[in-house]
Amino acid sequence: MNGAEALVAAAIGEGIDVCFANPGTTEMPLVLALDSVPGIRGVLCLHENVATGAADGYGRMTGKPAMCLLHLGPGLANGLTNLHNARRAHTPVLNVIGEHASWHLPADPLLATHVEGVARMVSHYVKGAAGAATVAADLADAVDGARQSGGQVATLIVPHDSQLGEAGPASPARRAVPRKTHAPENVLRAARALKAGRCALLLGAEALSEDGIVMAGRIAAATGADLLADSFFARMERGGGLPHVAKIPYFPDQAIELTRRYAHVVVVGTRRPVAFFGYPGIPSHVTTEAQTLVLTAPHEDSLGALAALAAEVGAPDGVAPVSGERPAMPAGPLDAASVAAVIAGLQPENCIVMDEALTVGTAYYDASRHAPRFSHLMLTGGAIGEGPGAATGAAIGCPGRKVINFQSDGCGAYSVQAFWTQAREGLDVVTVIGSNRSYNILNVELARAGVTEPGPVARSMAALDNPFLDWVKIGEGFGVPSVAVDTAEGLALELEKALAGKGPRLIEAIMA
Amino acid sequence: MNGAEALVAAAIGEGIDVCFANPGTTEMPLVLALDSVPGIRGVLCLHENVATGAADGYGRMTGKPAMCLLHLGPGLANGLTNLHNARRAHTPVLNVIGEHASWHLPADPLLATHVEGVARMVSHYVKGAAGAATVAADLADAVDGARQSGGQVATLIVPHDSQLGEAGPASPARRAVPRKTHAPENVLRAARALKAGRCALLLGAEALSEDGIVMAGRIAAATGADLLADSFFARMERGGGLPHVAKIPYFPDQAIELTRRYAHVVVVGTRRPVAFFGYPGIPSHVTTEAQTLVLTAPHEDSLGALAALAAEVGAPDGVAPVSGERPAMPAGPLDAASVAAVIAGLQPENCIVMDEALTVGTAYYDASRHAPRFSHLMLTGGAIGEGPGAATGAAIGCPGRKVINFQSDGCGAYSVQAFWTQAREGLDVVTVIGSNRSYNILNVELARAGVTEPGPVARSMAALDNPFLDWVKIGEGFGVPSVAVDTAEGLALELEKALAGKGPRLIEAIMA
Repeated sequence: MNGAEALVAAAIGEGIDVCFANPGTTEMPLVLALDSVPGIRGVLCLHENVATGAADGYGRMTGKPAMCLLHLGPGLANGLTNLHNARRAHTPVLNVIGEHASWHLPADPLLATHVEGVARMVSHYVKGAAGAATVAADLADAVDGARQSGGQVATLIVPHDSQLGEAGPASPARRAVPRKTHAPENVLRAARALKAGRCALLLGAEALSEDGIVMAGRIAAATGADLLADSFFARMERGGGLPHVAKIPYFPDQAIELTRRYAHVVVVGTRRPVAFFGYPGIPSHVTTEAQTLVLTAPHEDSLGALAALAAEVGAPDGVAPVSGERPAMPAGPLDAASVAAVIAGLQPENCIVMDEALTVGTAYYDASRHAPRFSHLMLTGGAIGEGPGAATGAAIGCPGRKVINFQSDGCGAYSVQAFWTQAREGLDVVTVIGSNRSYNILNVELARAGVTEPGPVARSMAALDNPFLDWVKIGEGFGVPSVAVDTAEGLALELEKALAGKGPRLIEAIMA
Repeated sequence: MNGAEALVAAAIGEGIDVCFANPGTTEMPLVLALDSVPGIRGVLCLHENVATGAADGYGRMTGKPAMCLLHLGPGLANGLTNLHNARRAHTPVLNVIGEHASWHLPADPLLATHVEGVARMVSHYVKGAAGAATVAADLADAVDGARQSGGQVATLIVPHDSQLGEAGPASPARRAVPRKTHAPENVLRAARALKAGRCALLLGAEALSEDGIVMAGRIAAATGADLLADSFFARMERGGGLPHVAKIPYFPDQAIELTRRYAHVVVVGTRRPVAFFGYPGIPSHVTTEAQTLVLTAPHEDSLGALAALAAEVGAPDGVAPVSGERPAMPAGPLDAASVAAVIAGLQPENCIVMDEALTVGTAYYDASRHAPRFSHLMLTGGAIGEGPGAATGAAIGCPGRKVINFQSDGCGAYSVQAFWTQAREGLDVVTVIGSNRSYNILNVELARAGVTEPGPVARSMAALDNPFLDWVKIGEGFGVPSVAVDTAEGLALELEKALAGKGPRLIEAIMA
């Protein structure tokens, strides 16, 4: 057994079952090992950022790391931004990065880079394998690294000679998933605050699971607290009668207007909220330090802490299901509100919505409040181009569930290669491109900055209208059946058809 | 005048006239400054790696840096691999990277990363602007950094508050381009070697300009030396009767078979050649140390050194133009040889060929030997996905010249967003996609490694055939008129039409 085979065997032993890959010459022994040591599904991606985005989506939905197999420093570099998003989402991801043979690297071949330095941008755990004899143990360590702190990015760099050489004895036994804890004194402090005045519970990580939201809802019922989530949460279970969680607004002035209503904001499984960008005269944090009480950080036992807090405040045993109407089907030319209403109105029970709709999607969060139960994923790190890849990974992680990728055109144009993997793997992903033909956030920012008449360069930098992107051709070019609509009725018809079928579909929703 | 305006004014003062951009909120003052301080053409790219690839192509063709304006660490990360290629090509590139306001960064907003660490992967010069008062001077320093050593990547990180604040007094005067030198003792050593035995001149950088190749040809005429170039040169002037320069083969065993013919290999404007990958039992360097004589490094005065060497060996004043036939037009189903023959047979005088055809293009180099004079650009750093961006930048740098992007499908799929910029800017780029529907280099490597029956995973990782990429739809989806052909006659017809017209065109050459 060579090092590559030992690595794959160790990965299987650690529970890895999917490898999103774009390998090259230096990774060929690992590719061959995926055949000779069966147990991991190899999924080819035509761009590394699709592979890393897929690993993020897969990890968020399954709670366990997928492997990304990438080619040297440049392969890792191409996948960095979705690893950045994964890092911000606390997703466990295992990168296995091939490297030149250790004896060849000193000659500085053209593809050589400082891989470790690049990996550190996004990884909590980085290690270079030192030889074939120890590479299986290194792999197990890296998976362990990916599982720490509630989910991290771990990167193992494997030189070609460590793949080819004779492996050591049997791979290590499977490591235990680390047990999470929480601090009881934080529970008491939070309980006092909740009893004393008007508070909000700001939920993240596992506090946004069904169990977490139900417990938070019970605490809210006992104390009158509001439930909040970050503007860009990693994953939230929503709809189907679950208590409503309000999202903190994107712009910090609006966020502060919300948070100033509360004596305390109790932070559960996330951190004191930070403005997405800094605006002169507006603070970086949208809660004051005095106002902020941390119950748990993302890597702590938020479910245990919420259970203890519920007991402490004498919360009722359950909460009544929230009821309400799904949006009525709109009619006429499409705008951001009607695209959101059609999706929220039609999305099926138990679906997964990967939402990178940004300005196109602002109405969607509230519109989907009374949808049947679903998992809502968002862009977390702000690095655009995540949606198509993450939807791909979510579909591979949850084969029985329909995935809807609600996608803006500006962000979507970053990651069109993902459609090919969706087609190749026959994945059940329906992509709705909200096509406003602009980087509209830039227009919004210009207007907020008082720039009412931007010059030609500024106008051109925000406009995707010359030429239009033809998403039907792009989708079909990568193998996904695609259609364009420009009315709410048309979108509803095509979305119903796509949801009734199986396999990938793309719908371009052209907005007026 | 704010810092952003002072920066743009300083850039104009330093001769910058193009900015390849994908800006975000933190760069809006710089975008507005491109309007208020006119003189730089803003070119929007839908992916940062298109912007950096364009800057590489522009810099190789004009010899001066373009500006890349990118959004924070993630924007830079997305553009890293073509900056890696630019670094390996010794192309001058100026990155201006926006950053969060310095007062906001300590709060660790979601898009925050260690920008400087990422920049160091590819940049010789990295600086963070310390305020609006000094940002213009920082910009001039960065351009100076880009001009050093014959062309480097320089990165200036500009926080939002450095863009918004009041600028200092007038920007600095334009810096002189550094004067190159060479070592006379190397000339004498090379002359002795050339007179004593059979040698090759290995040419790179400016030694592959018209003047360089003519001087090398004169030296060859006097000494019987052969002329060589690296497998992946940055730019070579070719055809139109210029002396022929042979390319060192890609695989090191074949390269060593070539170089062992020579008593000495005299290195001019490049470095001792290194195998692209390391193969067990084959050395990293394809010349021995004793065999290698360095006349000049890439940043040195290769033209001066060649002139001195020509005098030293008593070279004739000129060389007779090399004559020969262009390839005959092939017929029938397309293969790699016939695609190459059609392009080489039809390419017009004074065109630029950006060649990222890899295995599809192996025949092209020799086929184009007797084409009319043209500039030949290649992928330099091995990080695939450079061609469409570099062709875009070359077209912007040389508006009067036809650009042919000879592109393989695997590499091309990385950078499809470049077609949109070609359409938007009306660039005169004809893309020929040699569509073999595979990452064929992996098949070649497997065969060389003796793997005759790869398993399903290995086969799948090399195959782009399920589904096929439909390049006509992809090209048209991004706004470029596109057509597919599968015979040599069809390719010739469509290529002639495309070359006769103006503006971007894409031809998918489907190989049997």
